Amino acid sequence: MSNLENGKFPEALDILCAKELISNFAHKTPILTSNFFNKMLGGKFFFKCDNFQRSGSFKFRGATNAVMALSAEQKEKGVATHSSGNFGQALAMVAKLNNIKAYIVMPNNAPQVKFEATKNYGAEIIQCEPTLAARESTLLEVTSKTGASFIHPYDDYKIIEGQSSAMMEVLDDINDFDNIIAPVGGGGLISGTILARNYFSPTVKVFASEPLNANDAYKSWISKKFVPSDNPNTICDGLKTSLGKRTFPIIMDGIEQILTAKEETVIEMMRLVWERMKIIIEPSSATAIAAIFENKPLFENKKTVIIISGGNVDLYKLPWITAK
Amino acid sequence: MSNLENGKFPEALDILCAKELISNFAHKTPILTSNFFNKMLGGKFFFKCDNFQRSGSFKFRGATNAVMALSAEQKEKGVATHSSGNFGQALAMVAKLNNIKAYIVMPNNAPQVKFEATKNYGAEIIQCEPTLAARESTLLEVTSKTGASFIHPYDDYKIIEGQSSAMMEVLDDINDFDNIIAPVGGGGLISGTILARNYFSPTVKVFASEPLNANDAYKSWISKKFVPSDNPNTICDGLKTSLGKRTFPIIMDGIEQILTAKEETVIEMMRLVWERMKIIIEPSSATAIAAIFENKPLFENKKTVIIISGGNVDLYKLPWITAK
Repeated sequence: MSNLENGKFPEALDILCAKELISNFAHKTPILTSNFFNKMLGGKFFFKCDNFQRSGSFKFRGATNAVMALSAEQKEKGVATHSSGNFGQALAMVAKLNNIKAYIVMPNNAPQVKFEATKNYGAEIIQCEPTLAARESTLLEVTSKTGASFIHPYDDYKIIEGQSSAMMEVLDDINDFDNIIAPVGGGGLISGTILARNYFSPTVKVFASEPLNANDAYKSWISKKFVPSDNPNTICDGLKTSLGKRTFPIIMDGIEQILTAKEETVIEMMRLVWERMKIIIEPSSATAIAAIFENKPLFENKKTVIIISGGNVDLYKLPWITAK
Repeated sequence: MSNLENGKFPEALDILCAKELISNFAHKTPILTSNFFNKMLGGKFFFKCDNFQRSGSFKFRGATNAVMALSAEQKEKGVATHSSGNFGQALAMVAKLNNIKAYIVMPNNAPQVKFEATKNYGAEIIQCEPTLAARESTLLEVTSKTGASFIHPYDDYKIIEGQSSAMMEVLDDINDFDNIIAPVGGGGLISGTILARNYFSPTVKVFASEPLNANDAYKSWISKKFVPSDNPNTICDGLKTSLGKRTFPIIMDGIEQILTAKEETVIEMMRLVWERMKIIIEPSSATAIAAIFENKPLFENKKTVIIISGGNVDLYKLPWITAK
């Protein structure tokens, strides 16, 4: 059902073209530094702020690349996906910018704030029961009826190419760093980062971070076998999904380590970034800093880039307040 | 009791020197834009983000300039001020960077979070009753006993020169804007902005914003007579002070208009900046956006710079949650 024409494994040129294409639509997000975190973590850290990206997360990059790869005929029929979070918002925004229809299948128990954000970008929302089976059957109904192209949130090479543009922008700005770390959910961002590294900066080590409570990627990596996510209990709503058929082998091949972090460390690092850096990051992004905090020796006296994946947070429900 | 040697009215060269000096210690803060706010407010807006300044507010600029103007002998005895907020933190941080002592007189009803932030910068805190008389007498005791130099939070030409460096940095980055707006409390930031404008960009109009509930500067401007602040009830904790002897005439001479904003508009704009721009700004800073929102015609189709004065917020007490 996914875009099978996007089945071509990304070459170096695809990565370069995706970056060039995306630069016409996305923000080149800033890289921030913080004396406080450098001191606390004992290294030099560079925050690549995709919380400032359009639609509030890096997902805008991949969505742009995937939508632009569609034919005129496909675009006319629109795009569809299932997502309760950042990818739904990103696809809705890209569709709106391209004046095409977006159908977003969302579980009926998604928070009101996410329905509204997605609707504000002009998407048509189709509610379904909150199970994977219901999501998939509802999506199939939608695509059958409308002819819309299904855009997978992460397991699509066009998406992976798009997400690599964050790393490519980092390489424009700094080129002598040792490590880069990003959160892993479905694996689109980390796969794109690995491919960009493979082609354009092969000495950099790529780390991934994951909540301990949703450590399916860690288990997959350690066991060298795909382990699916099993309805995990974590505040990192962006990191509950399983790896994909396309992302799993890229990660197995190219990751240095997958590091996990406890929920309380994630919450504390999220709060500290807000307090000290005055930027809003979501819990999923805080896993990267929390994983560094829990594995300091790996990063001491090194230069490490942290991809801040997004900043979409319900400002009425802050985890350090509700957790109290 | 204040530094009378700082009694020389700032000339163009003083403004340039302050900028040069401060550039060695302070961040050159970024200027952000937002399609959302451009559309909502009907103009082009440039957010000069001093919430990213060291110590979390523009106050670090003036504190640096004032401390660097002290003699070696004065520095040896330390610096003192009374402040429950951003100036206390800024002075404490500047003192620490210069390896000199800082004595901060704080009212005993100040929030715990502010005691801790100031203490974390290594300052000695002296508590007093929460009245202006107690603050002043306690400060006098401290300076008599220690010989520390009193640095006034705003009514000091060295402070005013220092605050002008925010506007000077804006002029480095953009030079064809129509307006600049900043909040007014004691008037240090707005006075510095006016002087920088007078000398280096005379066609730009300078606006000030103030909470309607603490509109002493507005009343002073309208009546052309100094009107003191009278224990106002506002969430803008940085804007409760009265204008000073030095700031009042500069403002009277150079301000285009002082605009007020309702508390609920301030809270809503603060929340919208967090949600849409993913940056943390404090209520005082949100008055500028709220004042534009309540006076749209003045800014429509114009280019306006908004000085985001700070981002020091108690993350456990967000006004849109507590106000509910």
